[in-house]
Amino acid sequence: MPRHLHLNAFLMTTGHHEASWRLPESDPFAHVSLDHYVRLAKIAERGTFDSLFLADGPQLWSSLAQRPAGALEPLTLLTALATATEHIGLIATASTSYNSPYNLARKFASLDIISGGRAGWNIVTTAGREAARNFGLEHEPAHAERYARAGEFLDVALKLWDSWEDDAIVGDKAAGVWGDDAKIHPPRHKGTYFSVEGALNVPRSPQGYPLLVQAGSSEDGKEFASRYAEAVFTAQQTIEDARAFYADLKARTAAVGRDPEHIKVLPGIVPVIGATESEALAKEQELEDHIVHRHGVANLERLLQLPEGSLELDRQLPADLPPESAIEGAKSRYTLVVELARRDRLTVRQLIGRLGGGRGHLTFAGTPEQVADAIETWFTQGAADGFNIMPPVLPSGLDAFVDHVVPILRTRGLLRTEYGPRTTLRERYGLPRPANQHVQPVYA
Amino acid sequence: MPRHLHLNAFLMTTGHHEASWRLPESDPFAHVSLDHYVRLAKIAERGTFDSLFLADGPQLWSSLAQRPAGALEPLTLLTALATATEHIGLIATASTSYNSPYNLARKFASLDIISGGRAGWNIVTTAGREAARNFGLEHEPAHAERYARAGEFLDVALKLWDSWEDDAIVGDKAAGVWGDDAKIHPPRHKGTYFSVEGALNVPRSPQGYPLLVQAGSSEDGKEFASRYAEAVFTAQQTIEDARAFYADLKARTAAVGRDPEHIKVLPGIVPVIGATESEALAKEQELEDHIVHRHGVANLERLLQLPEGSLELDRQLPADLPPESAIEGAKSRYTLVVELARRDRLTVRQLIGRLGGGRGHLTFAGTPEQVADAIETWFTQGAADGFNIMPPVLPSGLDAFVDHVVPILRTRGLLRTEYGPRTTLRERYGLPRPANQHVQPVYA
Repeated sequence: MPRHLHLNAFLMTTGHHEASWRLPESDPFAHVSLDHYVRLAKIAERGTFDSLFLADGPQLWSSLAQRPAGALEPLTLLTALATATEHIGLIATASTSYNSPYNLARKFASLDIISGGRAGWNIVTTAGREAARNFGLEHEPAHAERYARAGEFLDVALKLWDSWEDDAIVGDKAAGVWGDDAKIHPPRHKGTYFSVEGALNVPRSPQGYPLLVQAGSSEDGKEFASRYAEAVFTAQQTIEDARAFYADLKARTAAVGRDPEHIKVLPGIVPVIGATESEALAKEQELEDHIVHRHGVANLERLLQLPEGSLELDRQLPADLPPESAIEGAKSRYTLVVELARRDRLTVRQLIGRLGGGRGHLTFAGTPEQVADAIETWFTQGAADGFNIMPPVLPSGLDAFVDHVVPILRTRGLLRTEYGPRTTLRERYGLPRPANQHVQPVYA
Repeated sequence: MPRHLHLNAFLMTTGHHEASWRLPESDPFAHVSLDHYVRLAKIAERGTFDSLFLADGPQLWSSLAQRPAGALEPLTLLTALATATEHIGLIATASTSYNSPYNLARKFASLDIISGGRAGWNIVTTAGREAARNFGLEHEPAHAERYARAGEFLDVALKLWDSWEDDAIVGDKAAGVWGDDAKIHPPRHKGTYFSVEGALNVPRSPQGYPLLVQAGSSEDGKEFASRYAEAVFTAQQTIEDARAFYADLKARTAAVGRDPEHIKVLPGIVPVIGATESEALAKEQELEDHIVHRHGVANLERLLQLPEGSLELDRQLPADLPPESAIEGAKSRYTLVVELARRDRLTVRQLIGRLGGGRGHLTFAGTPEQVADAIETWFTQGAADGFNIMPPVLPSGLDAFVDHVVPILRTRGLLRTEYGPRTTLRERYGLPRPANQHVQPVYA
């Protein structure tokens, strides 16, 4: 079978460009519209994407004045989308810092059953004091501690998902025996962060457990990904950086004894598509013209942990920023932003323009052929197993990608032309169904 | 407008009779079948029920040998049912002891938005050591402490649901102002059990917040219901007991300054329906014949907190059982079972037969007319505002109720004949939409 691109549609209200909501075509209430998300899911399914994805954090981001804030809770929304779609995978972000393993394992198992094996979990540890303060903590837990908890969370969740063997249900009506208690394996877990005694109250799901996805690119993040992740979303600005990241992650995965083919790397790309290159650039400019710069300055100051009023729009970033190690928030994002500004000697205004498009992800403006070329180059030159598609405006940007880029990728033999029979999300990504740890080793 | 019955369909896998799964018509995998639940929801909607309801506890109940165990997580399942139905309310059980207010408030707000205002929350404090041990606790929290936490949980949840005023979203594209930050009210709650600083990340939902439902009938439970509940599910064996409970709850509600019309009391009823009385009784006997008594004895010993082997099938309960005050589990259920056994001088075998049908709820076997008569009598004589319908076998028992009892209730003017325009669940129950506490007092 030829190697195929894996495509994920990263859905975000009116689009990934922060000013997208201001365009005439955009619905300011899209963030709470099921119809809007059903429409997006159907477009992605028309493009035979492997999956769609929702980001999340358990706090109200930014101020309401700036842009659409709040959203439908991802697992709830994906469950509704499961009933409106047939083939596409459904990946929800959920935090290991602000959930209980028992509750979260149940919800993902339930979504996996309801969707016929299409659930995926983007595992995040959730940076930020705002989230911590919604869950009884005064301060954000330290970065390393968040990852330690995440590791134990995964171990417990895997025990819960394996607490029913696949054939635990007997259904013997005549004998009055519904199930086989010998095939139930309570975790009896006592650890640093969690104690979980009993078996899950949901049977083992079609995939065994949801596809495990991860997106942090810090050292802790990559270490975590190499152990658990089956797909990784990453922000890379150049093909050189992307190739280095790709090789590093595959090597780390092999080093812990896993098959490096079993971790798929998907850089994010914000495709700004026009019939001609100048049309694409005009579209990009239109979006940039809608940015409200005072919001961008405030957001940048928060990310860089600088006092309010320290940045000036038409100057570069100050020279004396702290190193990543001193940052307790989203480390890899901090470094990406600082390196981008330094590399291209951007003023604050220019930096805001770049970030407004994709928050540090690669923005690529061009014709469908140019976008397809970029994708093919990264895919064939060791930089990506696929892409996390982040349209600047939704739904029109996703429509444009599916109508104009997808046919080119298909013609070039890089993308499936149809889904074929219904399969699980893990099968779409070319990954094996995990065995139950009580039946045989998971990664044998 | 004439006073109408409120009907709730309590959905439970293959039915409320513990032996229902053994009948030829039953699917042993119904507990994880979305199709099964969609079918049930559509039957209930055909019967113009106000709502449907799913019970829940975050633990694996009983042994697998006994009967179907495990289920789809209720909020997940109800979200899928929201997309398959148009009018019926969707009530999920969720625990205040084993959830965080921020996470749970988000999920209910999201379900309320997705369903167009049809979400309800059956608030439970979750008895039992098994659940506690799935959430890091060695022992079950004391009954009074669980209710103290539940009260604070509700206060925080209400603050979160009111943290957005209804008109906080402005959507002014020209000015670049999406929302009005002055209409966001972070809870800044610091209490005994919870600290929650920030506003919810979901806008205020169609109902303001989900219909609040409660089902505990202990002193603590009734006290809690009088403060917060808008609908109450209760198990009552006789009309005298039901009338006393009804009057007590209405009086308590008035005593805390609420309108007693704003709390609806719905006793459970397990209708075993036959074309003739003897057909109904034969159906009841068929179910009883499928009970596996060794399971029943074990369950009873656990409920009564007796050592294994202390009960004998053909003798009555021992005389020296502890008082309710000594029970730390499901107090009202304990008392109900003991009183039932004493009142009717039941042997353990007979008691198991009675409980097998509805776990302490009123089982009523008869013709459609007899069932309708019983419902009308309780409804018109101060015992009920409606009923929690608990079919012994599903889907056939719900079909029988909708096809044969519902038409009689409609003819008698006790039940709506059609839904009419789409409304919220709260409107179905004849309750006002709660005002935002930051705009005017909630119960003015």
